[in-house]
Amino acid sequence: MPGPNHYDVTAWPVGDPVRDIGQVINSIIADVKRRQAVTADGGKPGAVIYIPPGDYHLRTQVVIDISFLRIEGAGHGFTSSSIRFNVPEDEWPDLHELWPGGSRVLVDLAPGAGDDASKGAAFYVERDGSPRISSLEFANFLIDGLHFEPDGSDLQPENTYVNGKTGIHVASANDSFRVNGMGFVYLEHALEMHNADALSIHDNFVAECGSCIELRGWGQASKITDNLIGAGFKGHSIYAENHGGLLITANNIFPRGASSVRLSGVTRSSVSNNRLHSFYPGMVVLEPTSSENLVSANHFLRDHEPWTPFLGIDNGRDDTYGLLRVSGNNNSVIGNHFSEIIDAQGIRPAGSTPVVIRVAAGTGNYVSSNNVVALDVHAATSDSCFAAQVDALLATEASDGLTVTTVMVDPGSARNTILDSGTEAQVVADRRSNAVRATPEIGS
Amino acid sequence: MPGPNHYDVTAWPVGDPVRDIGQVINSIIADVKRRQAVTADGGKPGAVIYIPPGDYHLRTQVVIDISFLRIEGAGHGFTSSSIRFNVPEDEWPDLHELWPGGSRVLVDLAPGAGDDASKGAAFYVERDGSPRISSLEFANFLIDGLHFEPDGSDLQPENTYVNGKTGIHVASANDSFRVNGMGFVYLEHALEMHNADALSIHDNFVAECGSCIELRGWGQASKITDNLIGAGFKGHSIYAENHGGLLITANNIFPRGASSVRLSGVTRSSVSNNRLHSFYPGMVVLEPTSSENLVSANHFLRDHEPWTPFLGIDNGRDDTYGLLRVSGNNNSVIGNHFSEIIDAQGIRPAGSTPVVIRVAAGTGNYVSSNNVVALDVHAATSDSCFAAQVDALLATEASDGLTVTTVMVDPGSARNTILDSGTEAQVVADRRSNAVRATPEIGS
Amino acid sequence: MPGPNHYDVTAWPVGDPVRDIGQVINSIIADVKRRQAVTADGGKPGAVIYIPPGDYHLRTQVVIDISFLRIEGAGHGFTSSSIRFNVPEDEWPDLHELWPGGSRVLVDLAPGAGDDASKGAAFYVERDGSPRISSLEFANFLIDGLHFEPDGSDLQPENTYVNGKTGIHVASANDSFRVNGMGFVYLEHALEMHNADALSIHDNFVAECGSCIELRGWGQASKITDNLIGAGFKGHSIYAENHGGLLITANNIFPRGASSVRLSGVTRSSVSNNRLHSFYPGMVVLEPTSSENLVSANHFLRDHEPWTPFLGIDNGRDDTYGLLRVSGNNNSVIGNHFSEIIDAQGIRPAGSTPVVIRVAAGTGNYVSSNNVVALDVHAATSDSCFAAQVDALLATEASDGLTVTTVMVDPGSARNTILDSGTEAQVVADRRSNAVRATPEIGS
Repeated sequence: MPGPNHYDVTAWPVGDPVRDIGQVINSIIADVKRRQAVTADGGKPGAVIYIPPGDYHLRTQVVIDISFLRIEGAGHGFTSSSIRFNVPEDEWPDLHELWPGGSRVLVDLAPGAGDDASKGAAFYVERDGSPRISSLEFANFLIDGLHFEPDGSDLQPENTYVNGKTGIHVASANDSFRVNGMGFVYLEHALEMHNADALSIHDNFVAECGSCIELRGWGQASKITDNLIGAGFKGHSIYAENHGGLLITANNIFPRGASSVRLSGVTRSSVSNNRLHSFYPGMVVLEPTSSENLVSANHFLRDHEPWTPFLGIDNGRDDTYGLLRVSGNNNSVIGNHFSEIIDAQGIRPAGSTPVVIRVAAGTGNYVSSNNVVALDVHAATSDSCFAAQVDALLATEASDGLTVTTVMVDPGSARNTILDSGTEAQVVADRRSNAVRATPEIGS
Repeated sequence: MPGPNHYDVTAWPVGDPVRDIGQVINSIIADVKRRQAVTADGGKPGAVIYIPPGDYHLRTQVVIDISFLRIEGAGHGFTSSSIRFNVPEDEWPDLHELWPGGSRVLVDLAPGAGDDASKGAAFYVERDGSPRISSLEFANFLIDGLHFEPDGSDLQPENTYVNGKTGIHVASANDSFRVNGMGFVYLEHALEMHNADALSIHDNFVAECGSCIELRGWGQASKITDNLIGAGFKGHSIYAENHGGLLITANNIFPRGASSVRLSGVTRSSVSNNRLHSFYPGMVVLEPTSSENLVSANHFLRDHEPWTPFLGIDNGRDDTYGLLRVSGNNNSVIGNHFSEIIDAQGIRPAGSTPVVIRVAAGTGNYVSSNNVVALDVHAATSDSCFAAQVDALLATEASDGLTVTTVMVDPGSARNTILDSGTEAQVVADRRSNAVRATPEIGS
Repeated sequence: MPGPNHYDVTAWPVGDPVRDIGQVINSIIADVKRRQAVTADGGKPGAVIYIPPGDYHLRTQVVIDISFLRIEGAGHGFTSSSIRFNVPEDEWPDLHELWPGGSRVLVDLAPGAGDDASKGAAFYVERDGSPRISSLEFANFLIDGLHFEPDGSDLQPENTYVNGKTGIHVASANDSFRVNGMGFVYLEHALEMHNADALSIHDNFVAECGSCIELRGWGQASKITDNLIGAGFKGHSIYAENHGGLLITANNIFPRGASSVRLSGVTRSSVSNNRLHSFYPGMVVLEPTSSENLVSANHFLRDHEPWTPFLGIDNGRDDTYGLLRVSGNNNSVIGNHFSEIIDAQGIRPAGSTPVVIRVAAGTGNYVSSNNVVALDVHAATSDSCFAAQVDALLATEASDGLTVTTVMVDPGSARNTILDSGTEAQVVADRRSNAVRATPEIGS
């Protein structure tokens, strides 16, 4: 073994990683702590725990309270469980594989009905006192929640996004954590981190989870970059609250999260240069009071659910809610592209004009140089998830224009500046209390 | 060996990886398949195959038809073969090294003249049926095509970018693939992927190849991020067709690709926040019918070839073609910087006015807040590739202004909006069928 | 050991890595060179040197003169030494850990007073001749300078950012280097690279260093992407000189660097899509003559130092200096958000109007679609670094507006274009020699 601080779960004498990798990792952590306690010079360098490719059941929650621990695998091993569970069962024997793979942790916890959400976490991190727990790293393995469960609706149980399971739950204040190259699938909560400082969530694959990335409590100076993300219809692809200086960039966020990015009380942060795709309104929501943020150079696409198993499901929001909704002060919305590609017959409430950017509350927001494309389509659907989505994405011809409000400023909001983001008729705002310069009309 | 699913090519009993790593890897894949077939619970976790630093000839094509395989090395090992082959041969004995290094796969395939391009691929991926092959990962090694070959022209054979070799060819529909930290050099096609979904091509070094990244067939929801890329003069640094929701961002794309980014039938995608440098027009081309894309926050630089061996070579396009050329509907071109730094004496056709952004076809495009810098320089050249390029890049003084058309809308295109992207004289567009607001003149 | 080119510092027979990892790595490099010299076919693939988690003193400088060497650890192991050293010493016994961790190199060099800065470098890279040294990679370990030293001021010595130590110093021209996943802490210079081509500095944690990333000499086609960076108050988070085609993007740069990004003679480069936070003016400085650069889609926040140990310290610049200061030609400043959140009572010089974007010299700059938020706050301070910073970041309410000059064009600068970046009164520029279109006034 290369150095005493390099562990391999398949080579550890305590427990059986295939049966319960949780027990094995906890035993390794205890060993790290025991050995670190006796060093003379105060150094506690932590360790790396390697998970080779393989299927490892987790029946015991991993509890982490030491810094500088890196848990790493050799493959995020994502494959779509959602597609598989919606293939007729009599076709399963013909499938090449039934399950995700790579370095795969199978979450076999069964949290009780009244349990705190953290009880269902495969990896639970908590440490009080000083300093904050630092430089924990999760890299290149998969956490698989296996199944969803009935939620009381008519939904096929595997489509509910409910199972009480969490991939990683960080409960206490932390510094310089990293989550890189990970896969998360079929968890109700993939990654829930409280009170993060200088966190990096980079280059992961987080999909088919109830919610994907949740930054809770408060925090600062973190980044969520270059990930592939797509939550279920009940949760959020990215959610953050009370964060300052958060950088959300270069992510490709696909459906079907209730929101792609939802920020509450987030300030002086950026949502820039992402590709965002959703089947519902409310793609990016700046809840009260999210202020002085920059939403820039993003590509927003909202169209219709094309895949049969999820037809008729949505997040309950009207088309007047806004694809981008801002409730806060002094935010900048600059240089985004919006495509609203919907069936005019299905607009809700019927007869209303869909809203693309809605400034619902707050003052001093600056909305400039955004382009809105709105088309009325007759959406096709298909039993094949991939084909349906690609067909829908590539269909840009033979559509009619759709009348939309590109920017709506609610009466309770004032002192906003709206520039070049819609023609005179497309921008609904009180010109006495806001500054509006309409995009010039064609041929004017 | 850490777990049964962790392989090392230098420790495998079948074959000799130095003589033919292809035979070794195929033997390992057969072993993975054999062992996976007998598991009881349906799990097929795949494996990791490690290639330590070293030179490994590949004489047998690697054929991959299992999911969750990660092939990884410990170094992309790029060095410039182009510079080396253009050093006089009598100086070669004084060179520190002649070849690239790292975990280096030397492609010794010799595809026949009439062979399909896939025959010359070092790594060939194909699997029919369901589910699509998933989570294949290539990481941190180098694929080296070694030599280019005479192409019938007067070119030094090592400068032709032709040899029939491909690094990785993915022939069938796939999901959640990753290509990270790889190096590709001296291949006619570095990476050619068909029908990709949720693909990530991240942080690679792909240079001195005929074409670098080609996404063919159709696909969706993928990202090409944070790479260093530079194709030869015949091919494309990035090419994609029939993709939706593709995110191309944070790449540094250097010369000399015929195009930096060429998109055909690509929709609802982003080319944002890249640094793009080319010696020819047609840097970013949105071919018919590429629609609802965002081209934003990029830095475009077009100047002249400064290195002696490639003087006089170009991609055959006139200077009126456009550095950015758009043929499609409802695209957004927002907030880009363009530097056109050329010798007015060499403009083609002689006497014409170079065009920077050309909307050649389509309707409803939105072009706003782009800045064009155009300078007339007398280009210097040098036998030293690095010095020549840096000198040219840093020379911004002592240049005269050059008259250009910053935006040209062809007569066949209409209903576009052009804002703040050139003065009244610099924007050539029919004002009756387009909306134009010129950038204010100095002192006006 | 997997292949002869894979080394582990804890398994090498020469030296003791815990006592002096420098001696061990130099001995390994000598072995690589010796073995490579006898290969027949000219291949010199280099090697990987693995540093498992642990504390390794470095008493001998590592000297690297071979290509294709990858030195990698299993954890950047950052924790804040700055916070720790400012905890009262009697509380140290209660701390969970005193030092950073991971794969940690403790720099125990003691450069002499008159020594060249490179003498204090833990890793020193130099090779003359051709080709340039290529594909050196540093990955996933920590370089820790341990302590700062008295600087002659009243500062607590651990807060001076002075100790003569450098993490990595690259002295000669180089190609395709990579620095990924590294940590740097308590070094006077973290990473100083001369004459870089196609360099990638990606996903690192570089903080609490005098200066973090310095690209010196000249260079091209490099990228600094997706890092967490924060220098001390004396140095720069990112500094580059005489570079062309540099891409600085997706970084989260936190205080307290004298500059977040300082460019001198840098051309045709991008500073885009970063999150920038500073306690002083002069956050991004384009020194003479930096031309044709793009500064776009960044979030700038300048507020006050909230943490007690550094109160009263700044970079000496007046509030009229500009948060972004441009001295060069034909730069584009597009679509940035600026928050200037300061106490009006502390403006320097007293009674002056703070300047946000200052075009100090040069011609032809294009400043468009930038939003400036300026608030007058009564800054709170705290002994708790994390709490203080988060509290300050989240405080956006209950502030008064602050009068600022959003754009100032100095009299020596001309032919600039200023659009939608401030109201008529907020833009100070000679309208006869510049083009100005003011942001429309509210209700106008």
